[in-house]
Amino acid sequence: MIGGGTEMHQEVINVSTRGRGAVDITGRVQQIAAAGGVRTGLCHVFVHHTSASLMICEGADPQVLDDLEAFLGRLVPDGDPLFRHTAEGPDDMAAHVRSVLTATTLSIPLSEGRCALGTWQSVFLYEHRHAPHQRRITVTVQGR
Amino acid sequence: MIGGGTEMHQEVINVSTRGRGAVDITGRVQQIAAAGGVRTGLCHVFVHHTSASLMICEGADPQVLDDLEAFLGRLVPDGDPLFRHTAEGPDDMAAHVRSVLTATTLSIPLSEGRCALGTWQSVFLYEHRHAPHQRRITVTVQGR
Amino acid sequence: MIGGGTEMHQEVINVSTRGRGAVDITGRVQQIAAAGGVRTGLCHVFVHHTSASLMICEGADPQVLDDLEAFLGRLVPDGDPLFRHTAEGPDDMAAHVRSVLTATTLSIPLSEGRCALGTWQSVFLYEHRHAPHQRRITVTVQGR
Repeated sequence: MIGGGTEMHQEVINVSTRGRGAVDITGRVQQIAAAGGVRTGLCHVFVHHTSASLMICEGADPQVLDDLEAFLGRLVPDGDPLFRHTAEGPDDMAAHVRSVLTATTLSIPLSEGRCALGTWQSVFLYEHRHAPHQRRITVTVQGR
Repeated sequence: MIGGGTEMHQEVINVSTRGRGAVDITGRVQQIAAAGGVRTGLCHVFVHHTSASLMICEGADPQVLDDLEAFLGRLVPDGDPLFRHTAEGPDDMAAHVRSVLTATTLSIPLSEGRCALGTWQSVFLYEHRHAPHQRRITVTVQGR
Repeated sequence: MIGGGTEMHQEVINVSTRGRGAVDITGRVQQIAAAGGVRTGLCHVFVHHTSASLMICEGADPQVLDDLEAFLGRLVPDGDPLFRHTAEGPDDMAAHVRSVLTATTLSIPLSEGRCALGTWQSVFLYEHRHAPHQRRITVTVQGR
């Protein structure tokens, strides 16, 4: 049990995407987690968008990301005739659905001053639009 | 870095639904976030049900919610012949699946005393049953 | 409003799985939540793997889990010809997709010293591989 008050550190970062696909942000998240000086606690990650999302996924073999993209592309096709929200292009509504099916917010335990990710876990920003975007993410570190 | 201890504020709210569909709860969440007097921190939202869920989604164009509902209705059909848990009606098991595919818990950064949602982000309670329900939600605010 | 500093307690547990399927970990999470002596706060659960995940789901009728498994098995078939990441077997890539579609991290409100789960809510570790595994989970309790 850690008593006597916990500390908090919050930082906003911008991530550039090259269009649809997952961008590994593990290094940037770990950097912010380490900067706060917190040894034990939690690291929260939040993406401020509805057509990009967050996920924790296998980061060692790039084929995993390719396969996941192939799966999502089949599950939520761009320009699906179901979709009526099409003013911004055939990938816009698909992007919203993909965001809802993945995550907007993650919380990762901090141990010994680092995000205690599993051996195969990486943190990704998932861009769901085909055009490159600047995406805003807030990282909040709490603990002692 | 914010030191010297963080504060915490927890409130339970009830949300009435009119049957299947998303209910915008952004205003109520922001009200609780503001009431605690916390300037920087996190706001956690939790729904205490297994056939209603939470999501952050585009809230400006109501067609987005209609399209999302159409998508989920096709992906997880009521009365799917796969389902054997049917005692409470053909929408019950579909509701559980839809809950698992969306979210039961969300964490939103608090900045300057407000949930720092992106321009297009709204917080929704998603009712997955066809009948109207009263749904219980706990909002927990932490920070300083 | 709870002022004067919050406390934090973090514990790592190992859960044995018998292969694909959901393992109820509600009791173990509640035990850790109670051990910290925190009355009001949050309990975070994190799984350190990319082919097992977490979910909150109806825990009273075991048919719900069977139906969910049937649904996921149809949605994300093992050995899907889309998948190229197959070196570890036909269930490996399917497991990664299933993890992404469910959750790696959960936050549950703590009230009166317990995780304030709804009447029908249980917390599950979802093993997505067919072989039994040892899975590592971190539980972090914060509050007062």
